[in-house]
Amino acid sequence: MSKAADDGGVPGGRGEPAQQLGGEAAGGKLASKLSASSFTPGWTKVSCPCCASERVEPLVLVKLGQKAVPETKRWLIKLIGAPQKDGGAGLLAHPGEDATGNIIVLSAPRCTLLRATEELGLCKIYHTGEMEAFAYNDRDNFRNSDNMEVFLTSAERQYIIKYELDGLRAQKDLRIPGLPDSCTLQKRDNIWQKLGQVGVVVDTFPLHNPDKLKDLSESWYSGNQLSQPLDKVNEYFGSSVAFYFSFLDFYTWSLLPPAILGLFIAYFSSRFGDEIYFTDYKNIWYPLISGHMFQAVFSMLWSTVVIELWKRRSSTLSYQWGTLNLAERFAEPRPGFHGDLGVNPVTGRVEPLFPEWKRDLRMALVSVPVVGLFLGLVVLGMMCFYWAEARVKWLHKDWDSMISQTFLYVPSVLHIVYTNMLATVYRTVATSLTEYENHREESAYDNHLTGKILVFTFFNNFAVLFHIAFFKQDVPLLRKRLASLLIITQLVNQVTEVVIPFLVDRFISAPNRSEREDDPKEDKFRNQGTLPTFPGLFAEYIELLVQFGYLSLFSCVFPLTAVLLLLNNLTEIRSDAYKICKLFRKPFYPPVASMGVWKVAFEVLSFVSVVSNCWLLLLSPRLQKTSQEAGMSGSHLLVGAVMVEHVLILVKVIMAALIPDEPDWIRKKREHIEYTSMQALRQQVSQGKISKAVCGKTKYTLGLHNK
Amino acid sequence: MSKAADDGGVPGGRGEPAQQLGGEAAGGKLASKLSASSFTPGWTKVSCPCCASERVEPLVLVKLGQKAVPETKRWLIKLIGAPQKDGGAGLLAHPGEDATGNIIVLSAPRCTLLRATEELGLCKIYHTGEMEAFAYNDRDNFRNSDNMEVFLTSAERQYIIKYELDGLRAQKDLRIPGLPDSCTLQKRDNIWQKLGQVGVVVDTFPLHNPDKLKDLSESWYSGNQLSQPLDKVNEYFGSSVAFYFSFLDFYTWSLLPPAILGLFIAYFSSRFGDEIYFTDYKNIWYPLISGHMFQAVFSMLWSTVVIELWKRRSSTLSYQWGTLNLAERFAEPRPGFHGDLGVNPVTGRVEPLFPEWKRDLRMALVSVPVVGLFLGLVVLGMMCFYWAEARVKWLHKDWDSMISQTFLYVPSVLHIVYTNMLATVYRTVATSLTEYENHREESAYDNHLTGKILVFTFFNNFAVLFHIAFFKQDVPLLRKRLASLLIITQLVNQVTEVVIPFLVDRFISAPNRSEREDDPKEDKFRNQGTLPTFPGLFAEYIELLVQFGYLSLFSCVFPLTAVLLLLNNLTEIRSDAYKICKLFRKPFYPPVASMGVWKVAFEVLSFVSVVSNCWLLLLSPRLQKTSQEAGMSGSHLLVGAVMVEHVLILVKVIMAALIPDEPDWIRKKREHIEYTSMQALRQQVSQGKISKAVCGKTKYTLGLHNK
Repeated sequence: MSKAADDGGVPGGRGEPAQQLGGEAAGGKLASKLSASSFTPGWTKVSCPCCASERVEPLVLVKLGQKAVPETKRWLIKLIGAPQKDGGAGLLAHPGEDATGNIIVLSAPRCTLLRATEELGLCKIYHTGEMEAFAYNDRDNFRNSDNMEVFLTSAERQYIIKYELDGLRAQKDLRIPGLPDSCTLQKRDNIWQKLGQVGVVVDTFPLHNPDKLKDLSESWYSGNQLSQPLDKVNEYFGSSVAFYFSFLDFYTWSLLPPAILGLFIAYFSSRFGDEIYFTDYKNIWYPLISGHMFQAVFSMLWSTVVIELWKRRSSTLSYQWGTLNLAERFAEPRPGFHGDLGVNPVTGRVEPLFPEWKRDLRMALVSVPVVGLFLGLVVLGMMCFYWAEARVKWLHKDWDSMISQTFLYVPSVLHIVYTNMLATVYRTVATSLTEYENHREESAYDNHLTGKILVFTFFNNFAVLFHIAFFKQDVPLLRKRLASLLIITQLVNQVTEVVIPFLVDRFISAPNRSEREDDPKEDKFRNQGTLPTFPGLFAEYIELLVQFGYLSLFSCVFPLTAVLLLLNNLTEIRSDAYKICKLFRKPFYPPVASMGVWKVAFEVLSFVSVVSNCWLLLLSPRLQKTSQEAGMSGSHLLVGAVMVEHVLILVKVIMAALIPDEPDWIRKKREHIEYTSMQALRQQVSQGKISKAVCGKTKYTLGLHNK
Repeated sequence: MSKAADDGGVPGGRGEPAQQLGGEAAGGKLASKLSASSFTPGWTKVSCPCCASERVEPLVLVKLGQKAVPETKRWLIKLIGAPQKDGGAGLLAHPGEDATGNIIVLSAPRCTLLRATEELGLCKIYHTGEMEAFAYNDRDNFRNSDNMEVFLTSAERQYIIKYELDGLRAQKDLRIPGLPDSCTLQKRDNIWQKLGQVGVVVDTFPLHNPDKLKDLSESWYSGNQLSQPLDKVNEYFGSSVAFYFSFLDFYTWSLLPPAILGLFIAYFSSRFGDEIYFTDYKNIWYPLISGHMFQAVFSMLWSTVVIELWKRRSSTLSYQWGTLNLAERFAEPRPGFHGDLGVNPVTGRVEPLFPEWKRDLRMALVSVPVVGLFLGLVVLGMMCFYWAEARVKWLHKDWDSMISQTFLYVPSVLHIVYTNMLATVYRTVATSLTEYENHREESAYDNHLTGKILVFTFFNNFAVLFHIAFFKQDVPLLRKRLASLLIITQLVNQVTEVVIPFLVDRFISAPNRSEREDDPKEDKFRNQGTLPTFPGLFAEYIELLVQFGYLSLFSCVFPLTAVLLLLNNLTEIRSDAYKICKLFRKPFYPPVASMGVWKVAFEVLSFVSVVSNCWLLLLSPRLQKTSQEAGMSGSHLLVGAVMVEHVLILVKVIMAALIPDEPDWIRKKREHIEYTSMQALRQQVSQGKISKAVCGKTKYTLGLHNK
């Protein structure tokens, strides 16, 4: 252990020396030996108490702020390298060129990776070839468990580093070395969060692996391939991203049937008029079976089948990617979670607790009313817009001057400005609300935040269309609006999402970066920091959801919807892939077992679509005329439509209940895992080992105190 | 081991002698020592290889048929007493007065009971006071595990005996001693099923415990108590019966709010006419809020709240009764299950397997169409009835003679006969269909059978009412019909269910039984066999479901429904309790975790009620008149009703989603169990014990062959 490290303020040297790279390299003398060119194939020979590894892969870059003096940096490296039982993160840290630089490059030793794999509840391939929940004690029976770069995906290795950093908590009150006295950590404070708040750490992001990235992009979007390399995407970006692309892929291909039907109907409509008459004689039922009706019923059933099949596909993917059995509930709470310290009744560990009923109360009494208020503001804005538009038109008719003509655009402009401002405010409010709800798990937090923004965005997008369909009851206007929305929004999306970032990257950022082959590794890492942060999958998912909404809610008024969407999505797959690979930093994503709240959103939409389609069919002028000719009153028609709607909803519910959400073989695997753990419990309780097991890791018992 | 037992044909004596009571008592000489008076407090001192017990409680009576010669009986007693690893049932058997009598009295030793407790997945109180899944290896840490009469409920002990008997399978081909050569058992044949088929065993039923029964009935229905002793019911009759009575209790008390509301509305209706006018001035909305409307909306929301609260209550009861964690999926398949022998991928045991898709196919292609056909026959019958009635009336108007007047009753009589015949045929068909579907678990079989009969019975009960409400649209007729149904069916039910059995029991059966205090125990046991078999809970549940249907589907036409039902149920609780205690044999019921398919039926009904109530409100003549006065067209009214319906369904769905199905503390307990077993798995895999554990008990490896 070098002297400098000891001076850094970490007490260290308690029992076994921290033989991590961080510990060794923290000193100025040693650091000079590790020139940047030694980043790969290996930093130095690393050995930790439980495993030895010949090669260190740089995984994550930490960028320090102005406030981080060398003393702070040395303390930080020491902390990161210290074993978990001493309150450290058990990772490998490299200080970059020297101890005064503003980056730290992180990697993880095998034992930390394996322990975290167990903690996260990831499944890996057992020696029998089956997926089994990974157990550290049984590590030698898992395939490839000696080679971390094969055993864990690159996304998992990087996420584990983030997981360990986020899990760092102060063992007791301490001052951060090199910072003013006001920057102290209370016992059990989250260290990484605090460091970010005081400006010591300004950025933590995973590093790209240029070779792998090149390989991935070649098989993903460079050629003319039709299928996506989803397993590779999962390997490189993690299951969250891979689930998005899998769904995009699945959804795009499932657009084929409605697209073909739409083309067929559009062709016949243009030749024979709006309705397909099967016979000439005046039988009342035949003309009722118009092309649009057929399409409406088809799309209502289609949406259920697609969603049910996706659930099956999703659980298969989740099994393949080892995320079927995630144990987030049993892991440490997320960094932002707070509450009174107590014993968790499930895991038996001491951690902050927050009663469920309090959260429910906060949701019911605060979140729901606030979200409702914002939805009300959207409606209010829309009503003001219609009112103002009517006033302005009336004014223009009276005046008919240049000024009044300009006024004609004022309501639209004001409405757009209002809507955008509202959306921005809402986003902030939604984040605070979700923070206030104080969810224990990261995934619950994400789902609640996503859910809130989702409802609002959806409402914002569809309020006008619903208004036209249900209040104005103006089908031609709806058709015009839908067509323009479909074409314009898609063009705008493609431009804002890909073309602009591409141009910015090529002509503004890239010249400043000017990367050369012989640049030191470290500079290349640093360069990745200049790329913008990946904006997240929310925008991508909401785009799909809005598409799906256009298609399922209003498809019957514009039969070519599916065709347009299919064409759009085929390019979307490529542009999204290009975007995530080239235009942004690599994002951190936790392993997930499904699309989460998005699945629910698509499901809800598919039920709403029945109501909307039945209503639109009822408005169809041709149907109204035909039924009048046949002597049916409006009420009879309405009763008929309501009956059709109820039957269709019933059929959808039954279909959704009958199609199992997971394939049979996955169910058996899952039950097998349940059975084995039940058996293990029965076998073991007698040996009195459970009490120990329940207490789990004693991460925080030994203090890492500050001199 | 007595000689007679050896002659009995069981090979026995392989290694350790079967020291069960059965083994000892099978011989004629020994049996004579065990006079009937020695049944209690103990048969003989019993000791089995793993436990010793001073006292044997007679639990189950097996009645043998004419075919069972003494040789067969000795073989059977030997088989029942043989240890499980030798293919026996591991039970205690007492031959009654002597080896030639036609009864066998069964009990179970501690180790068999405890092993079965683990196999069934029952939870028991751990030494910490918490409920934990019972593990045989850890038995000493469970409270009262040395005293079976406290540790297990009497229903559980008796069910375990049935479970072990049902699990008896031939180890290899063998001939049943004393029977003709044609009666042979193939390897893996279910022995108990076969013995029933060939007429050796004609009856197997659990024995009443007169003291406990007296105690139970005193606290249940003899006094004026308002609450039922549900825990005692669970102790004596098992959780299936206890769940029924808990639900009856819960449902009866939850009738209070609608009953009070109904009384209130009936009172005001009689004083102020059908509608409550809040003001005098002609505002259109006030008169719309009529009492009936309020009641309809109230009852729609009430039904959801009741069902959601019942789910919570149900999971609490399930936790208290230790059935939260039943392991039926992992146990042996039910006796009737057949399929090709193979390795169960979940448990790793060799057993018959039957692919899921084949079952699904059978359900989709056979069961569903056949059930649909029968429902069609119900409708057909109803249509024929209406047609015939119209014809007969028309005929009577023309003729107006005595003969034609008699004819007036013919359609009704024919319809009743037709309906009853159809129901009988359907019951047989439903049983065969469910048998054909080949379910692996007893509970799945029960649920599918119950579901089928349920749909039919419900359809049979409500088809006429729906026809009146939706096609004839005749609210007064509906009201008349509903009132008469409510009163008549309840009277009929009470009479057929209680009064007739009571009279039969008191005046026909009892004099024949003429039990005296000094009768030998054995005769008292035998006497229980003369009581009729308990007809099952289906009729009880369907009665509640039909009640609930009247209340939630059509309540708004007859406000006093809830009052009538409340009065009925308060007597129903007592009469049902009396019935199950006194008029029938004690039934076998497996431990269950909930009401099963009945919960779903109540839930579905609660959603259908929204549709039906909204429609009935629309038909309300007062509403139609008011809206006409206000200048609303029929279509507008219809659109309004549809909107109200959709909003109510949405509210119900959201309410059902928001109210958690289990209380928070139960969820935590459940997650704690999951967590402990996950930890156990992780701790243990390393020790290579799972492979052994997975193979489970090797019940069938050693043969019990016939000489």
